[in-house]
Amino acid sequence: MKVVSAIKRVPEDIQTRLKENFNEVEFLFCHGIEEAERYLKEADVFITYGEDLNPERIKQARQLKWIMVLSAGLDKMPFQEIQQRGILVTNVRGIHAEPMAEYAISMLLQVSRNAKAYVEFEKNHEWNRRMINQEISGRTMVVLGTGAIAQGVARLAQAFRMKTIGVSRSGNSKPHFDETYKVEELHQVLDQGEYVVAVLPSTKDTQYLLNLDHFKAMPDHAIFLNMGRGDLVQSDVILQAVQNSYIAHAVLDVFEEEPLPEDHPFWEEEKVTITPHTSGQSPGYVPRGFEIFEENLHTFLNKKGELKNKIDPKRGY
Amino acid sequence: MKVVSAIKRVPEDIQTRLKENFNEVEFLFCHGIEEAERYLKEADVFITYGEDLNPERIKQARQLKWIMVLSAGLDKMPFQEIQQRGILVTNVRGIHAEPMAEYAISMLLQVSRNAKAYVEFEKNHEWNRRMINQEISGRTMVVLGTGAIAQGVARLAQAFRMKTIGVSRSGNSKPHFDETYKVEELHQVLDQGEYVVAVLPSTKDTQYLLNLDHFKAMPDHAIFLNMGRGDLVQSDVILQAVQNSYIAHAVLDVFEEEPLPEDHPFWEEEKVTITPHTSGQSPGYVPRGFEIFEENLHTFLNKKGELKNKIDPKRGY
Repeated sequence: MKVVSAIKRVPEDIQTRLKENFNEVEFLFCHGIEEAERYLKEADVFITYGEDLNPERIKQARQLKWIMVLSAGLDKMPFQEIQQRGILVTNVRGIHAEPMAEYAISMLLQVSRNAKAYVEFEKNHEWNRRMINQEISGRTMVVLGTGAIAQGVARLAQAFRMKTIGVSRSGNSKPHFDETYKVEELHQVLDQGEYVVAVLPSTKDTQYLLNLDHFKAMPDHAIFLNMGRGDLVQSDVILQAVQNSYIAHAVLDVFEEEPLPEDHPFWEEEKVTITPHTSGQSPGYVPRGFEIFEENLHTFLNKKGELKNKIDPKRGY
Repeated sequence: MKVVSAIKRVPEDIQTRLKENFNEVEFLFCHGIEEAERYLKEADVFITYGEDLNPERIKQARQLKWIMVLSAGLDKMPFQEIQQRGILVTNVRGIHAEPMAEYAISMLLQVSRNAKAYVEFEKNHEWNRRMINQEISGRTMVVLGTGAIAQGVARLAQAFRMKTIGVSRSGNSKPHFDETYKVEELHQVLDQGEYVVAVLPSTKDTQYLLNLDHFKAMPDHAIFLNMGRGDLVQSDVILQAVQNSYIAHAVLDVFEEEPLPEDHPFWEEEKVTITPHTSGQSPGYVPRGFEIFEENLHTFLNKKGELKNKIDPKRGY
């Protein structure tokens, strides 16, 4: 049994632990696909971020029975070839919930509490107590999405004694949400959205779902945060929303075009805070991913139980 | 019955609500002590921040039966005269717990997640994904203090799935702390303190309680946050701790000298983040203070029940 990993810089302690826990398995930890490619034809299991596979490589990997994707996104996987060969695919769905929830709360606190102004005061050696720092505690948050990440945000928001409202296709009630509504009811709840957090994936239903009327419906002290996908709303709509003071601020981690072009007006807009698609980044990412892998490897070797986060190659998720 | 308030800028809605709810009471909302002083001799109840009273004014206030202090600090109250006259004193103890807990979590997130660097990238229109953002989730927090504010911080920390360790004089277990220790045991727990939050008041026991050895005992990635009192530790000790990398960063809201002098080395130290004693500031402060007052006014008028936050003038707390 041979496991080939194309994940760069897997920490030594993880490599050692896997080798110790699975004596019968040969592990090859490679530094990226260029190195891993040489061993593909012997691999029974392949560990990847999912962006380096193509039909040709699947063909090369004659022994391949299982692909472990250390990512939630699977857009680039050659599912047709995978399906034909009956290769198993699992991913790390849910792994982003904790860092992304922490990101959202962190950014909302930062904007509400004037972090940028204090950075400036510090630079100027200025003892300035005139800022009014808003609290997030006790306010109302509307989350667009009610999945694992959305629930993670709502869970923390509730710890801050916020009221949490979730909006999803079904409108079904979900943990950590005080109330949930259907997307069609979005307009009814936006006037409560002092904090509006979008964690929607990009699908035909969510593309450009938000328009200027949605921002007009929010309170004028609202802070909008998007860490889902950049095509939820046009950049220009966000600019109009903040420049006309329909809302107070926008925190953006995702954009229509990434990297955000150097001359994009967002950079200069005071009421926009930009992070470079880092909401899901975490030093705990690889360790957590390999924990899921290890659990699945036990299942795979023992040939009983259900693999975690198994993907249906027909649907692609 | 006359209530005189020296609190500046009491929101209209609070004034209206009190007048409506207490028909039998005459309220005089004054803009500070200069204006309030004129009415002191008729006041049955006086509302103050507690810094404007002196023995002379207590003497003038011949009718005074109750002083409501809209503050937690009572250092400047003329307790001798108050005690002689048998005047009741209440304060707003506990009112800082929520904003200060939010402040602490906000600042720890901000430092752990490199907020200052992202502010800089934004200024430079720089899409930089190379920063490693540490998570607070799952880490360990040591809180010096286990009172209302400390518990508020620990409660939020637990929501982030942090382990919380409290240190107090008694070492008694308290809500939201996984473990509690006595001050004498401080050294044993500091090596676990990835986040060390100080919320101790200034007493003879806490003055200069921390020395360089304490910082040496913390992990070198520790972030130290002081929002208690500035005389917990010498400025120079903090500077040495960060400059010698005994700890990674210090977040300071309180200082030995306030305002922090313009030429103080803290301002230029990259590993120090300064806020100008604003951790307890909150736009909800006055409303929450008047909620406590209103509750107490009912008790006071009905002459039954126990006043909230009643102070013993002999002890001064």
